[in-house]
Amino acid sequence: MALIVHKYGGTSMGSTERIRNVAKRVGKWVRAGHQIVVVPSAMSGETNRLLGLAKELSPAQTTSAVMRELDALAATGEQVSVGLLAIALMNEGLDAVSYAGWQVPIKTDSAYTKARIESIDDQRIRADLAAGRVVIVTGFQGIDGEGRVTTLGRGGSDTSAVAIAAAMKAAECLIYTDVDGVYTTDPRVVPQARRLATISFEEMLEMASLGSKVLQIRSVEFAGKYRVPLRVLSSFTDWDIPIDEEARSGTLITFEEAANMEQAVVSGIAFNRDEAKVTVLGVPDKPGVAYRILGAVADANIDVDMIIQNMSHEGRTDFSFTVHRNDYARTLDLLKTQVAPATGAAEVSGDPRICKVSIVGIGMKSHVGVAATMFRTLSEEGINIQMISTSEIKTSVVIDEKYMELAVRALHRAFGLDGEPAVAD
Amino acid sequence: MALIVHKYGGTSMGSTERIRNVAKRVGKWVRAGHQIVVVPSAMSGETNRLLGLAKELSPAQTTSAVMRELDALAATGEQVSVGLLAIALMNEGLDAVSYAGWQVPIKTDSAYTKARIESIDDQRIRADLAAGRVVIVTGFQGIDGEGRVTTLGRGGSDTSAVAIAAAMKAAECLIYTDVDGVYTTDPRVVPQARRLATISFEEMLEMASLGSKVLQIRSVEFAGKYRVPLRVLSSFTDWDIPIDEEARSGTLITFEEAANMEQAVVSGIAFNRDEAKVTVLGVPDKPGVAYRILGAVADANIDVDMIIQNMSHEGRTDFSFTVHRNDYARTLDLLKTQVAPATGAAEVSGDPRICKVSIVGIGMKSHVGVAATMFRTLSEEGINIQMISTSEIKTSVVIDEKYMELAVRALHRAFGLDGEPAVAD
Repeated sequence: MALIVHKYGGTSMGSTERIRNVAKRVGKWVRAGHQIVVVPSAMSGETNRLLGLAKELSPAQTTSAVMRELDALAATGEQVSVGLLAIALMNEGLDAVSYAGWQVPIKTDSAYTKARIESIDDQRIRADLAAGRVVIVTGFQGIDGEGRVTTLGRGGSDTSAVAIAAAMKAAECLIYTDVDGVYTTDPRVVPQARRLATISFEEMLEMASLGSKVLQIRSVEFAGKYRVPLRVLSSFTDWDIPIDEEARSGTLITFEEAANMEQAVVSGIAFNRDEAKVTVLGVPDKPGVAYRILGAVADANIDVDMIIQNMSHEGRTDFSFTVHRNDYARTLDLLKTQVAPATGAAEVSGDPRICKVSIVGIGMKSHVGVAATMFRTLSEEGINIQMISTSEIKTSVVIDEKYMELAVRALHRAFGLDGEPAVAD
Repeated sequence: MALIVHKYGGTSMGSTERIRNVAKRVGKWVRAGHQIVVVPSAMSGETNRLLGLAKELSPAQTTSAVMRELDALAATGEQVSVGLLAIALMNEGLDAVSYAGWQVPIKTDSAYTKARIESIDDQRIRADLAAGRVVIVTGFQGIDGEGRVTTLGRGGSDTSAVAIAAAMKAAECLIYTDVDGVYTTDPRVVPQARRLATISFEEMLEMASLGSKVLQIRSVEFAGKYRVPLRVLSSFTDWDIPIDEEARSGTLITFEEAANMEQAVVSGIAFNRDEAKVTVLGVPDKPGVAYRILGAVADANIDVDMIIQNMSHEGRTDFSFTVHRNDYARTLDLLKTQVAPATGAAEVSGDPRICKVSIVGIGMKSHVGVAATMFRTLSEEGINIQMISTSEIKTSVVIDEKYMELAVRALHRAFGLDGEPAVAD
């Protein structure tokens, strides 16, 4: 008997028919002798519907008081899900009880719409599990010190599930979603992409931060911090497949170094089109210039990802960095009107039509020449590299976005990741 | 400056456009210098939608655990409303804060789906009002001793509003709904029906229990117990009518005897088609027979309204009573298979096609001959009276349902209630 946390995404909870399937699947795990805590998301579309109503009533939603009310509003989506799932489970003959975040309680800070979990009281959940009940806890939300409902931000239900698994010292946290695991890259771009049976925590962290949408990055960080074994698997398989088969399906995010020794040097290719590049040209190369540029950007609450400072030439240098595409216009304006005059820069330019492509693999730590293989592959395809950034287990490049698919496919092949083309269902 | 509770029904909260109008109306009251607590219902249709989903998942919803989850589920409807209204109010430039029942807290017993309010802590509400905020509290719900969400049953938001007004010692509780007050009778049946400027608490209680759907009877009982001045008025008037005019509109439910001295002997005509009549014929007339009949009915959880025992004839009597039409078939079956054999009754018969028509008026206390006028009026229309029941301030008769409209119109005229025909809008 093990204590296992199941998390079901919005698509898995999208209709009463699907909720019934979730109940049957959970029932199978309970009958196999496990204690199950379930964390469901809101029914798909529900959070957007609620926030859409709020937006109609107040187009500019900026004050903390409005954020507080948006959280109270949005949190109802998951509260509906837990009630419905409890009823569905009881209809399957199981004993079940639902909890909203405030009832557990899951305590958070007061950063409305993006709160962070501070503590989870597992007393009531443990008592219910001991009494033979399935415990269903709302994802995405908690309660702050003022007794107000908070939400954790988009994808927060993954984080809730992992945090509960950590607090309960669960044997495993199963993230049921609409894909059957983590792939070497997006199968929509590379039909030869393969599902990974295991991926190391560090790799998953890079994949999540680099644009793989399978898991919310905060949930991966949480899993890493508390060493929660995490598995991504599909809720769209038949609910009555044998439990051993289901327990081994999907992708396991593992903390065992050994498990990765056998793996390929590169585990996956990540990419995203969310960023834009800006460059400050001909800025005097003296101490403090990087701070004067990036400090102003940070003050405007703009996140910076990759940063490149060119070799100095006649006492002047060029300074490039990437920001989220949504911040592109604002960043360019800031650089032109404030930073350039203040630093004596000659010119400001930018390009929103870029993409970032990354190779990720824990094997890169111990293998030389991996980055070289990446650059050679891109060069053979005639793709110019605009920026480079590296870490122990990943190498990212910025290229023209029109080459994105070409680059991803070439790299996938070059690092030996191609499998049999996936069969479309 | 006065503390006033506003309650808005589901139709008044039915769309973002209507919520915006509620916000503007509340804003008008605040700017006139009042402290306002608002209790909104769920958006119209929302509670039915939620319970409909639950019914799809579990057609037979009988256990206490299922009821508990139904309450957690249904309560989200009002939680959405308070969040949206708070946001709408802030968009109007007002400071506002929302509370779910559990946050106030509004404490109830654990009778899920029909809980009763035990206490209301007004501390947080008072602090917010003192800080200049509009306070919005969910109707229909509370929290029990176990920390579970409970609901008060259909129409429970009226009760919540009155209970909050009582706890806060509010100057008045305004029930905004889709009609503009309490009428002498249903204007759909009698076009000459008039809106009453005031009605006594006792009369309102009779009207509510006799089938007038304007106010939930529990809310009227609550208002009576704590002497909360209650006013029913329309949320569909222009929101920007002068505040004095609005404050005097609708119907005031009053506790002042004096206010009623001037009124007509009869204030209104109530009627409903919800009941059915059953008769046990030729039952031996000896002590305990009424108990043996009605005890069996009560044991089957069937509510009985009117009861008539005929004069005894040769040691046998007939015994008639009315039940809700939904219970008619079950009652008839019970009487035939169990009660008749046990009591030695000769026959059981019934008639579901009846209606109850009542005249209600506090003036009946001090005026003789009111019932006689009622019976004469019906007789002049050729309407046979099947059953009669009286109290200090009402007289009810059961007649064939096909005469219902005729009887109501004739009585409305006979007691001088006809006004100018209402103009249809």
